[in-house]
Amino acid sequence: MRLVTYRATVEAEARLGVLVDGTVVDVARIGARAGVPLPSRMLDFIRLGPVAVTELGHLIEEAKGRWPVDGALPLPSVILLAPIPRPEKNVFGIGLNYIDHVAESSRALDTSPELPKQPVIFSKPPTTVIAPGDPIVHRADITQQLDWEVELGAIIGTRAQRVSREEALAYVFGYTTLIDMSARDCRRAGQWIYSKGQDSYCPMGPCIVTADEIPDPQTLDLWLTVNGVEKQRNNTSHMLFKVDELIADISQGITLDPGDIIATGTPEGVGAGRDPQEFLSPGDVIEAEVVGIGKLRHPIVAG
Amino acid sequence: MRLVTYRATVEAEARLGVLVDGTVVDVARIGARAGVPLPSRMLDFIRLGPVAVTELGHLIEEAKGRWPVDGALPLPSVILLAPIPRPEKNVFGIGLNYIDHVAESSRALDTSPELPKQPVIFSKPPTTVIAPGDPIVHRADITQQLDWEVELGAIIGTRAQRVSREEALAYVFGYTTLIDMSARDCRRAGQWIYSKGQDSYCPMGPCIVTADEIPDPQTLDLWLTVNGVEKQRNNTSHMLFKVDELIADISQGITLDPGDIIATGTPEGVGAGRDPQEFLSPGDVIEAEVVGIGKLRHPIVAG
Repeated sequence: MRLVTYRATVEAEARLGVLVDGTVVDVARIGARAGVPLPSRMLDFIRLGPVAVTELGHLIEEAKGRWPVDGALPLPSVILLAPIPRPEKNVFGIGLNYIDHVAESSRALDTSPELPKQPVIFSKPPTTVIAPGDPIVHRADITQQLDWEVELGAIIGTRAQRVSREEALAYVFGYTTLIDMSARDCRRAGQWIYSKGQDSYCPMGPCIVTADEIPDPQTLDLWLTVNGVEKQRNNTSHMLFKVDELIADISQGITLDPGDIIATGTPEGVGAGRDPQEFLSPGDVIEAEVVGIGKLRHPIVAG
Repeated sequence: MRLVTYRATVEAEARLGVLVDGTVVDVARIGARAGVPLPSRMLDFIRLGPVAVTELGHLIEEAKGRWPVDGALPLPSVILLAPIPRPEKNVFGIGLNYIDHVAESSRALDTSPELPKQPVIFSKPPTTVIAPGDPIVHRADITQQLDWEVELGAIIGTRAQRVSREEALAYVFGYTTLIDMSARDCRRAGQWIYSKGQDSYCPMGPCIVTADEIPDPQTLDLWLTVNGVEKQRNNTSHMLFKVDELIADISQGITLDPGDIIATGTPEGVGAGRDPQEFLSPGDVIEAEVVGIGKLRHPIVAG
């Protein structure tokens, strides 16, 4: 199931939709027609747990394309937002989580060439999140090193406290495509939040694919282009710490709540790791995809 | 004005109160009696802007102790929560922001002895926040180096984007006392979030003192004891980057929203900086105060 947060018009409220054969079906409205109360916001839906996904699946199957008159729109006619437009906690980012990226990072940045023994965690404030297509802001007065990182985003579905690796994937609601924008010259005393936490630095979407459709998140191709030129292409099988390990590890000390987002790290091919280095400027366009989830396209604009 | 979030009983809802001469007066109820709608939650009150503080001040003055029957309780009879029990963004922490702490940190930890040229920012998830008196959890399986840091917390009142240092203090709603608990051995590749971001690692309160009562936040004494023995005593005048500089700096790249919290850094005297080093164990008790705001007291318990 592919879930989106959408507006029918620029002025309309943001609502939860499910994407079926190119049509955005309004979740609350298809529920209302069947007498099944379903929420109109993604976070409320996630909090209902896996039973809501199953229930929604039944409703869609029963409807067989006979959508409610006021509750189905062709995808190209709606405005997509980030699936979770405003997370309730900073997005958890994972650094140095693909082996070849550890190597390029140690050559270009100030990180160690040794593989991390535990996940390297940082965070991106909710104010970093932007909708598919929204501009990424280049603030020339504070960075000359704006860089790209395509990542698989994992969305937590059930409150996770000290879960084991074996049970960890059961706590995932779904997955999304995410770009972890980074101003390399805004790292401070080694801390990354100002480098990775500026407004517009977390494009996310276009949808959340529910976990039942991705039984193994370590098999996904992902790629990123700048102005049509491929910069990153890899597969989540090369992650150093897999999604289940990340959830098990973080949840040993930090409670993960429904709707929390983990950006699981980027493979090699970032701008800072190239020779010569490449960074983004206003006018550039990034495209990125986790194959099977969906593509993002974002222009860089002067701030 | 001293604002608290309180419960009248263990089962009662969390509500906004104002502390007047040892009495917690319910803000929404004193407003309702006067025909002035005021919210029952701290975040909603902060979002109303400074005019709400002025209005509430008038209501309290007019009442002159004749409090609503259902809206005033003696302070010792209520249960205080953190003033903002669940922030909507990770708490912004500032590292290495007192000169003598930079020195002790460079001796004991992996930080540079040079004074930072820009604020060193990290974050603490909303799940770190606990109420005054709540236990701080010592997870012996992941840390043997649980440490203390008393700090002044600044609460943002007005959305701040790219504000100047000169205007920055006008964006502050108020101040609180905050303890930035740190598991020193949970730093990873230099990133601090797992060290400072575990559940219960951000005691905060007991109240927010509104900014009109603290025109200069760089004049406040603060101290911390462990089991009654003084470990930290200093004054916010020794901050390297002052509150106005922190707000101006962060807001250049990251939007600060009403209710956002900045933990402004700790002075020297942390456990890791001592010779020999000292760390906390279950059974220890921390007390900490920013003088003029209020005192926190927290036991350490085994997790």
